Amino acid sequence: MIQPDNAADVAAGFAEAGERRIEWAARSMPVLQAIGAGFGADRPFDGLRIAACLHVTAETAVLLGALREGGAQIALAASNPLSTQDDVAAALRTYGIVVHARAGVDKATYYRHIHQALDIAPNVVLDDGCDLVNTLHTERVELLDGVIGGCEETTTGIIRLRQMASESALRFPMVAVNDTRTKRMFDNRYGTGQSTLDGIMRATNVLLAGRTVVVAGFGFCGRGVAERAKGLGARVIVTEIDPVKALDAALQGYDVRPMSLAAETGDVFVTVTGNRDVIRAEHLALMKDGAILANAGHFDVEIDVRALEEMAREVRFGIRPSTDEYVLEDGRRLLLLAEGRLVNLTAAEGHPAAVMDMSFSAQALAVAWLVRESVRMDPGVYDVPADIDAEVARLKLAAAGISIDALTGEQEEYLHSWRLGS
Amino acid sequence: MIQPDNAADVAAGFAEAGERRIEWAARSMPVLQAIGAGFGADRPFDGLRIAACLHVTAETAVLLGALREGGAQIALAASNPLSTQDDVAAALRTYGIVVHARAGVDKATYYRHIHQALDIAPNVVLDDGCDLVNTLHTERVELLDGVIGGCEETTTGIIRLRQMASESALRFPMVAVNDTRTKRMFDNRYGTGQSTLDGIMRATNVLLAGRTVVVAGFGFCGRGVAERAKGLGARVIVTEIDPVKALDAALQGYDVRPMSLAAETGDVFVTVTGNRDVIRAEHLALMKDGAILANAGHFDVEIDVRALEEMAREVRFGIRPSTDEYVLEDGRRLLLLAEGRLVNLTAAEGHPAAVMDMSFSAQALAVAWLVRESVRMDPGVYDVPADIDAEVARLKLAAAGISIDALTGEQEEYLHSWRLGS
Amino acid sequence: MIQPDNAADVAAGFAEAGERRIEWAARSMPVLQAIGAGFGADRPFDGLRIAACLHVTAETAVLLGALREGGAQIALAASNPLSTQDDVAAALRTYGIVVHARAGVDKATYYRHIHQALDIAPNVVLDDGCDLVNTLHTERVELLDGVIGGCEETTTGIIRLRQMASESALRFPMVAVNDTRTKRMFDNRYGTGQSTLDGIMRATNVLLAGRTVVVAGFGFCGRGVAERAKGLGARVIVTEIDPVKALDAALQGYDVRPMSLAAETGDVFVTVTGNRDVIRAEHLALMKDGAILANAGHFDVEIDVRALEEMAREVRFGIRPSTDEYVLEDGRRLLLLAEGRLVNLTAAEGHPAAVMDMSFSAQALAVAWLVRESVRMDPGVYDVPADIDAEVARLKLAAAGISIDALTGEQEEYLHSWRLGS
Amino acid sequence: MIQPDNAADVAAGFAEAGERRIEWAARSMPVLQAIGAGFGADRPFDGLRIAACLHVTAETAVLLGALREGGAQIALAASNPLSTQDDVAAALRTYGIVVHARAGVDKATYYRHIHQALDIAPNVVLDDGCDLVNTLHTERVELLDGVIGGCEETTTGIIRLRQMASESALRFPMVAVNDTRTKRMFDNRYGTGQSTLDGIMRATNVLLAGRTVVVAGFGFCGRGVAERAKGLGARVIVTEIDPVKALDAALQGYDVRPMSLAAETGDVFVTVTGNRDVIRAEHLALMKDGAILANAGHFDVEIDVRALEEMAREVRFGIRPSTDEYVLEDGRRLLLLAEGRLVNLTAAEGHPAAVMDMSFSAQALAVAWLVRESVRMDPGVYDVPADIDAEVARLKLAAAGISIDALTGEQEEYLHSWRLGS
Repeated sequence: MIQPDNAADVAAGFAEAGERRIEWAARSMPVLQAIGAGFGADRPFDGLRIAACLHVTAETAVLLGALREGGAQIALAASNPLSTQDDVAAALRTYGIVVHARAGVDKATYYRHIHQALDIAPNVVLDDGCDLVNTLHTERVELLDGVIGGCEETTTGIIRLRQMASESALRFPMVAVNDTRTKRMFDNRYGTGQSTLDGIMRATNVLLAGRTVVVAGFGFCGRGVAERAKGLGARVIVTEIDPVKALDAALQGYDVRPMSLAAETGDVFVTVTGNRDVIRAEHLALMKDGAILANAGHFDVEIDVRALEEMAREVRFGIRPSTDEYVLEDGRRLLLLAEGRLVNLTAAEGHPAAVMDMSFSAQALAVAWLVRESVRMDPGVYDVPADIDAEVARLKLAAAGISIDALTGEQEEYLHSWRLGS
Repeated sequence: MIQPDNAADVAAGFAEAGERRIEWAARSMPVLQAIGAGFGADRPFDGLRIAACLHVTAETAVLLGALREGGAQIALAASNPLSTQDDVAAALRTYGIVVHARAGVDKATYYRHIHQALDIAPNVVLDDGCDLVNTLHTERVELLDGVIGGCEETTTGIIRLRQMASESALRFPMVAVNDTRTKRMFDNRYGTGQSTLDGIMRATNVLLAGRTVVVAGFGFCGRGVAERAKGLGARVIVTEIDPVKALDAALQGYDVRPMSLAAETGDVFVTVTGNRDVIRAEHLALMKDGAILANAGHFDVEIDVRALEEMAREVRFGIRPSTDEYVLEDGRRLLLLAEGRLVNLTAAEGHPAAVMDMSFSAQALAVAWLVRESVRMDPGVYDVPADIDAEVARLKLAAAGISIDALTGEQEEYLHSWRLGS
Repeated sequence: MIQPDNAADVAAGFAEAGERRIEWAARSMPVLQAIGAGFGADRPFDGLRIAACLHVTAETAVLLGALREGGAQIALAASNPLSTQDDVAAALRTYGIVVHARAGVDKATYYRHIHQALDIAPNVVLDDGCDLVNTLHTERVELLDGVIGGCEETTTGIIRLRQMASESALRFPMVAVNDTRTKRMFDNRYGTGQSTLDGIMRATNVLLAGRTVVVAGFGFCGRGVAERAKGLGARVIVTEIDPVKALDAALQGYDVRPMSLAAETGDVFVTVTGNRDVIRAEHLALMKDGAILANAGHFDVEIDVRALEEMAREVRFGIRPSTDEYVLEDGRRLLLLAEGRLVNLTAAEGHPAAVMDMSFSAQALAVAWLVRESVRMDPGVYDVPADIDAEVARLKLAAAGISIDALTGEQEEYLHSWRLGS
Repeated sequence: MIQPDNAADVAAGFAEAGERRIEWAARSMPVLQAIGAGFGADRPFDGLRIAACLHVTAETAVLLGALREGGAQIALAASNPLSTQDDVAAALRTYGIVVHARAGVDKATYYRHIHQALDIAPNVVLDDGCDLVNTLHTERVELLDGVIGGCEETTTGIIRLRQMASESALRFPMVAVNDTRTKRMFDNRYGTGQSTLDGIMRATNVLLAGRTVVVAGFGFCGRGVAERAKGLGARVIVTEIDPVKALDAALQGYDVRPMSLAAETGDVFVTVTGNRDVIRAEHLALMKDGAILANAGHFDVEIDVRALEEMAREVRFGIRPSTDEYVLEDGRRLLLLAEGRLVNLTAAEGHPAAVMDMSFSAQALAVAWLVRESVRMDPGVYDVPADIDAEVARLKLAAAGISIDALTGEQEEYLHSWRLGS
């Protein structure tokens, strides 16, 4: 079960370091642990095989642990080679989970790992960006019949799945775990918000107070990034393509502009749109000496790094951790963080475990719901049932020691009666 | 057409005062004016009769003006006697709109005015709280066949309509104007937020910095109230019954508690839940001397005023504008604003016109859409089409001089292609 | 004692309305009331005559009440005719305080009232802007020998007093009540902050979310205005002439610019600098149609109203409460609030009583200190002793039910010992 | 000149790493570089010897570089062994500065290094915490006559110096660099604010949104920490012993309590008071399982670590970077960051260079001023002249591309004329 190219990892010390990480994460994930304990009692996944393509991190380890307690057999590939924590991978192997992942591998190896994870012949798939599901539908079609359904973690992945569904190409039900209220509200907003700024500070130690931070995209992630930048004293400019989101940003007091008018003003740029080439040559040409470029969107396509390379006469790699300096022909120096990949995962540690507790708890409950309901479900993209959301939030509040009101009988009745007027 | 009980209003001076108000509102409503100009060219409502039950305010006048430019014949009743601006009513009458409304009328007169507005035998209905639609379905069923559909403004009204629809009692399509992204985001959040705090300041001139403001309900309105209270320096406690909203409030840094634990701490209480008896005897019993009670929810049922009256040994009405002091048996004095009715409409001037520009523009476009599409629509509650939202936001940004990015061809393609992977 | 031109005021009903206002203010001024009770026991002002030139408001009435309880005989003139509450003046007269003040009087009457107040031949003077002290030193020099000292309320007044002192023109000690930490922190920042925005909202009902508010001056008052504008959702631009304050504003995330670059962007302008002509013709020439101009500085010289008048082809007075519209030659309409006078006093109700509780308590204690210490004091400008500040803050916290830590013995010792090293 | 115990450092590669760090810092310190260039032209320090006890960091290196350009000969000891960057020390040695410092040395070595720095027989001393000046006055009195004066960086050091001065023990003028407006406003507030939260995030990766952060002390540093914690979504409780600061915190919306009432509620505690035992056994006894303890005050005395050790049945050192877990007898686990030492220096990288640019520029200009003026100065503690502050701010604004207003002639005159009245 141990991969040859991972042989070095299995040294006991390495796995132990991973275990400490997982233990640290687990203590911030009380909801997921409570759910895992429930799974241990009910064994909802007995006899099921799961192929997962997820960030190989301590928090993921806690999720897989909960599923495993429920009886699942699991194979894991990394959804992003840069985020893979090799010590966690080593620890997971000692728990009996098959892991095909190593930090920093190239694209060919990345896809080989996905294939290897699929070799388990999964009944359930867990995806983060849709690469595993895509590979399954294009290169491993022989496995499709065995799959009863799966979950997708990211906005980007959901877009791809909906496209597949609209073309009738999707062959089983996929639950849009990303689209839960808890995920959008918490993971995207609070998790990405804090960890993105954390990544920028770790990489550059730049003072944010008084700086102009340009946030491209005002979805839940962008909102979180903008809030945290503002909370750290920055002046925030928002760019958008959706007029409703743009107007919302303006009404929250942000300076809203097109990127072409933000480029020359910004000290720090963060892309978080889900789209490509949000910062491109025409914008790079306008930026100030010393401008910092970071991406917090799923794929590393939001900043046109190729254009940056072409404009540079010299690149000084690693002048700070996760920071490369591009010296342009005209002498201006632009600082690219994390090679344009997810800055919060690469330069910091990704979402805090407390955030992942929410989204992974929803995912764990969604997998259980999918397993129960899949026989009644057609291929397509499904929302997580609202009661799972509410259940996760309820458990989280309880873990934080917060109690809330309950409806009285009269209030319940009032809400359901349309005959009561003014 | 002029009602006997409004005879006094028609004095030219009175109508002129209303016209000045309407002119003032209109200058903050550039989007609605642009839409009205378009209606004037296209005449989409030629020959149609509209019965409206709306707040009789300057902003409503601008909306009705736009519909009238499009050819509609209109009869208006007030959706809340306390918000009726008699001078605006007078001005509207000079524009040829039939108005049945007067400030401060009793409940019987309120419903008589609704009946009078219905006498126009409407093709389209505009409602704000569902009382007109309810009256139509229960007491004026003879008019139902002539109605092609309508719009509803409030969350409360939508709840009632959905209940009617689920019981198959609703007889024509109703557009949930409240449920647009723009309405929820802008009207509920920014409009209710500012005007509620404005009302509290006008009524009491209390310093909010350092005070504890308890906001009951964390929907879009509650969020707006909480943000503005925080922005004015208050410490904010949020109460909720929905765990997801409660958790969101907690993650935004608010102190979340049940009302029973907030009651003894709060200096100012604002209810904005859409439910009844949110503050009731058990809470009043715990409050501090001098606590201020305000409601920003649609109906005056959120604070149990009857309980307050029963607990009081003396009431000093009007010790400040819109402020009554209830002296309880134990000597504590509680201050009830606006008799528990909408504090932003009663103690201040309701939503700023700039906010109503958004929601009334959506409503104007929604009426045009309904008129075009009603033949293809079954009875039920309909969302406003997303492109109306986007259109309103686009016009609003343009009016504010804000430009935003557009997708490039490559970006459009990227968003639509699921085959592109990592 | 009753002035002929106030004859109408003395109608019992009028004074009663004033009493209700004073009672309302008093309940938000627990600290001042506690101090007044102490004065009543100690009678520190027995036999002393006080001439005061203050805003004639309910809060001032509570201050004068406390001094009167201490035995003082008092004559009061208004420091600003626009802020005079005639009903409060009437109520004060029934308390035996001589009041020379009426709302809206002209400049000649204003100075006549100051002279009439000085006719009491004061031992102590209370001033708000230095006009009474200035009159005393220039036109009533015969009274100077009887004066043991006084207090000045405003930054503007202090600047004038220091100038007098540096020219050896000042003849007695003046306590800079404005310069207490509590006054600067609380009155200037929280009081002016909230009441200025309150005044703008009452005058215009404009939505602040998404608007650009330009705050000229970043002293304590300007800071307060900027914070509240930001807290209401506005984008805030700060203008300054002091580089340290300008940098502080920038580091707090504000957009800092010269007025010439802010003029064309702003929707609302607030001057709060203590200087003249902060907004002048060159700026008015650049402003957007519909721009709103308000002043929150002590004197009405910050906006060059004369320039505005000269540029206007038409003025529409009172198109909203406290709002005049200037239609310029090129068609742009600029809205001037409160004629360029203090917008928070004129369009709203000035500082909330809870704020005045702080500064008036410091003032009451400062008067007592001055009376005790004046024999040992040379002419000059004096700071309020720090322990008065601390005493006021301590009483205020207690009134709010807030307890704080006390130093342990070891901590006291640690703070006083420099021999303890790393 | 190279110390035997630093022999390993001098390897070229090590010094090169330090140079890269210094270069990185220098690019965020444009003001200090401009001042250094001026010194290079004027040579104000030719022939002078400086002994410095400062944090041995890249930013300090830029400061010393500027002084050296002005002609000074410099010996440096570390003011805190935990903050010493050995690679920077190595690089400094290659510049000809004598450095006695190594990361992590014990107390005896720390003081030995101070003595070694004093061996230069300084004319000017630069101190950070007063240990060098204290040593000079107690153990190296033979050197006192050669000293013309010095600068002190920290609040703590100033307290010790003032105590010395009040006992007539201080023998030369010391400039309180800490007490400049720029230092207090910028270094203390923005620098400590951001870097403290940065340190907590790096050490724990904890989600701050929704957590309760208890900030002990509401001076400039505490204010900065509270603002950043709030800006990251935390609910902030402030503890204070000064009623004025406590009231200010309350009016800014913070929850103000004594530590005994904050202890059981907090998730994260930050001490920043300048005093000892702010968190002690009685508070530790009340804390929640998992509570995080961090100190951002100068000395490691604010958290009573000895009490914590005595209460623990087990300590797990380094369970995260800079994080030790104390398992108490009752099973609760408390997490102590950075051993109770400065969390921003130990767990993160201290103040961002942009902040140090301000305070070190003021310090550089203050040294030049001291050298010019010392012949006219008695022993004592001196404020930095206000024009140095303004000069630094002016240079900083210019470097950020921000221009501000200048007074017109009329405005200058207005500010200086007290005869102009209402």
